[in-house]
Amino acid sequence: MHRFIVKGLPEAAAGKAVDLPREEAQHAVRVLRLREGDGVELIDGNGRVYAAEVARADRDGAAVLVRGGLPGREAPVSLTLYMGLPKAEKLELVAQKLTELGAAAVVPVVMARSVARPEGKDGEKRRERLERIALEAVKQCGRGRVPEMAAPLGWKEALSRMASHELMLVPWEEARGTRLGDVRAENPGARDIALLIGPEGGIAPEEAQAALAQGAKLVTLGPRILRAETAAIASAAAVMALWGDL
Amino acid sequence: MHRFIVKGLPEAAAGKAVDLPREEAQHAVRVLRLREGDGVELIDGNGRVYAAEVARADRDGAAVLVRGGLPGREAPVSLTLYMGLPKAEKLELVAQKLTELGAAAVVPVVMARSVARPEGKDGEKRRERLERIALEAVKQCGRGRVPEMAAPLGWKEALSRMASHELMLVPWEEARGTRLGDVRAENPGARDIALLIGPEGGIAPEEAQAALAQGAKLVTLGPRILRAETAAIASAAAVMALWGDL
Repeated sequence: MHRFIVKGLPEAAAGKAVDLPREEAQHAVRVLRLREGDGVELIDGNGRVYAAEVARADRDGAAVLVRGGLPGREAPVSLTLYMGLPKAEKLELVAQKLTELGAAAVVPVVMARSVARPEGKDGEKRRERLERIALEAVKQCGRGRVPEMAAPLGWKEALSRMASHELMLVPWEEARGTRLGDVRAENPGARDIALLIGPEGGIAPEEAQAALAQGAKLVTLGPRILRAETAAIASAAAVMALWGDL
Repeated sequence: MHRFIVKGLPEAAAGKAVDLPREEAQHAVRVLRLREGDGVELIDGNGRVYAAEVARADRDGAAVLVRGGLPGREAPVSLTLYMGLPKAEKLELVAQKLTELGAAAVVPVVMARSVARPEGKDGEKRRERLERIALEAVKQCGRGRVPEMAAPLGWKEALSRMASHELMLVPWEEARGTRLGDVRAENPGARDIALLIGPEGGIAPEEAQAALAQGAKLVTLGPRILRAETAAIASAAAVMALWGDL
């Protein structure tokens, strides 16, 4: 199934003809070679997905006829990943996988042991690249919402934002005993979860203590030492299995 | 912490001096520049991990003094991933992440919708490459056992092997309703789990039916369509969160 993002679709789009945005139309015509009558899906970026049919596809563009809304594919839990700024290619992998897993946002954080540093104008280019990766992943997995790919935050700002979520989960190598499943048993109804994953060098003890003081649940991810990106993807999957729809 | 794989370590290794294998010794001396007295860990590949100390490191090699055994880092559940043969780089990512997550084995399977095909002599080279990736991941995550990276199996052979496990989990796009957590609730004590993930094109209906006839639990991974490698990593993480030690 080919999917296109059309922002600003009216909620009552069924029965309407809609022009695909220029880039999407070019891709539909030149690369996918779609023709009149082909079934596609439209994503509005705010959570809604529609079944549609190609009404016109030629060198001037492409239009589709919206058939009707499809069942939602957003997770019943809002998961925001705060991640100690890792190397660019790791963050790109995480952005793609977290989008598929249904996360609401990915927020890089400059932490004590971050090796990578945000880089002014280059930083904004990198963020835009993450947004493109997330958009592609949205189309691939068929969800209706595009997760936020935030600009890197400093630690204090990140900590304050994390504390505003209903539940703050902090997997930490030195945490002992408490597992994600234990936190789930005590907070089965949590619907707005922040997850903090350290950078390659891990979370510094003073950061873990500061998070704890803000109400974080420090948890173990088991006795094996996971790479930062593995920890992010695996714990997001576990959160979605425990609280969400995986 | 630097870790070295030393196969054939005696169980009562504590107090003994052990030569590092040639390649490991070269790496220790030339790349890591370890010196006498540095703390390291030894992995025997069969599940045991030891604390050790460098006793000698020079151009002729390296020897360590074994201090004692460390607590086990193997998962309490044996997880074997059967995966519809995907493109090489995806299988490499899966091999690395499944090793970190504690899987016992990764078995590629030639399935109806596999685009990739095993390739004779090249296939064996690829398998050896997966083994090297798994070895590196074992050292990085500190587990004691090296998971098996199997040669690709045909579908019938794979199905018969999958059926020999205590529990066979088959995430399938067209499965509705049953989630991994539901299967966990009915099989809390399962200790030997097979997980089948389709190739990029998914599991064909006749394959899902054949697995069902062999006792498989067909499960959903939620409404979003996960890439094959995301499905493998995310469901392995969920299995480890539900039955294992994550």
